[in-house]
Amino acid sequence: MDTHLHHNTPPHHDHHPESHFQSSESVRDVVIGMADGLTVPFALAAGLSGAILGTNIVVTAGLAEIAAGSIAMGLGGYLAARSELEHYQSEKKREAWEVVHKPEAEAAEIREVFEGYGLTETEIAPIIAGLERNPEAYVQFMMRFELGLEEPDPKRAIQSAVTIGVSYIIGGLIPLAPYVFLKSHGEAFRLSCIVTLLALFVFGFVKGRFTGSNSWRSALETAGIGGIAATVAYLLAKAFG
Amino acid sequence: MDTHLHHNTPPHHDHHPESHFQSSESVRDVVIGMADGLTVPFALAAGLSGAILGTNIVVTAGLAEIAAGSIAMGLGGYLAARSELEHYQSEKKREAWEVVHKPEAEAAEIREVFEGYGLTETEIAPIIAGLERNPEAYVQFMMRFELGLEEPDPKRAIQSAVTIGVSYIIGGLIPLAPYVFLKSHGEAFRLSCIVTLLALFVFGFVKGRFTGSNSWRSALETAGIGGIAATVAYLLAKAFG
Repeated sequence: MDTHLHHNTPPHHDHHPESHFQSSESVRDVVIGMADGLTVPFALAAGLSGAILGTNIVVTAGLAEIAAGSIAMGLGGYLAARSELEHYQSEKKREAWEVVHKPEAEAAEIREVFEGYGLTETEIAPIIAGLERNPEAYVQFMMRFELGLEEPDPKRAIQSAVTIGVSYIIGGLIPLAPYVFLKSHGEAFRLSCIVTLLALFVFGFVKGRFTGSNSWRSALETAGIGGIAATVAYLLAKAFG
Repeated sequence: MDTHLHHNTPPHHDHHPESHFQSSESVRDVVIGMADGLTVPFALAAGLSGAILGTNIVVTAGLAEIAAGSIAMGLGGYLAARSELEHYQSEKKREAWEVVHKPEAEAAEIREVFEGYGLTETEIAPIIAGLERNPEAYVQFMMRFELGLEEPDPKRAIQSAVTIGVSYIIGGLIPLAPYVFLKSHGEAFRLSCIVTLLALFVFGFVKGRFTGSNSWRSALETAGIGGIAATVAYLLAKAFG
């Protein structure tokens, strides 16, 4: 969901980028998984309640949805992280080749970048000279400054898949639990709404703190999305069910 | 889903970044919405078929899921894009203040960045001098080179929400259609599997072309995720249903 959180990565010259980067990526994965895990099974269960289907059908559909959603998002996250890594590696190979075989073209690219910021020819020349002394740093520089690519952690794909999938499952079991434990259809529905909206509120609040936005607004928005999704699903299922 | 596609943005010195950027972001939104839209309702419907529930229940649950999923992902995309914009703006404000009020600290940060690439003090000094002539470019430079942030398009939040939501709905109606039009439970299930796996295969192939990875592998992986999700949902619903 919060597909843009990663932008909040520490600058490259940070002396302990590893731990910062790791934790912000993991937080993002938990947010991605849990936001949908709380919302979609909740709204689905509410919808099926609108169609006055028995709690056993709600539980069956809810479990099927949690399985489907966690696998789709977890494996999707795995493939996304893996293709990011492959993209980085292939671009890096290309840059490494260009630095050695097309030094004039690379120098021209650097000149273009810095001219865009108003630097003059004489101010840019030392940068190129400095980078040409150290080809490895030159490649790293081009990856980040020309292409805007950060080196992904190779272990991230698996971690990301597991974190997203597990977060989805944990999130999804919260709205479903009342339908498992309560026999009465109406009671289960009401308890599920209360518990899940509360969970979404707390989750949104914590998410707001991590992403640096206003926590109370984030809490209200997250609970609001869940409420809207559940209401629409409820009305739709009631009309068609 | 493909939360990392954005990294494939054109370099800053590109002379027509707007159109490039726009289309790659829209492709990403379609991919995010449609990947889950095809997979989750498909697997849910398959799961409910495993529990031998009537096609009308499958359709009701499927519609409720599509409503819930499209709203959750669409509004989630909206909030993500908006918080990215807010984050960019607040960081830019801070940098603009620092460039004016803490020029030594900014210069030290630039020195640190370029020392990381092996440049010497005398090579770095002209960069700082050049940037200090033009405070606006200085701020832009720090946003991109120190913080690694790209300026987001302010109109993107709404666009992103609609694109993700509509893609989810279109994707979700494909696996559901057979249950709407066919009375026979078994026939609808089989047709849904064939049509959706085919759709996932084609979608994965096209996605592979856009993201620059191997199209055939992308096609197989995308259909594979759908197949695995549907199988697990089917077995789980059969066991609990």
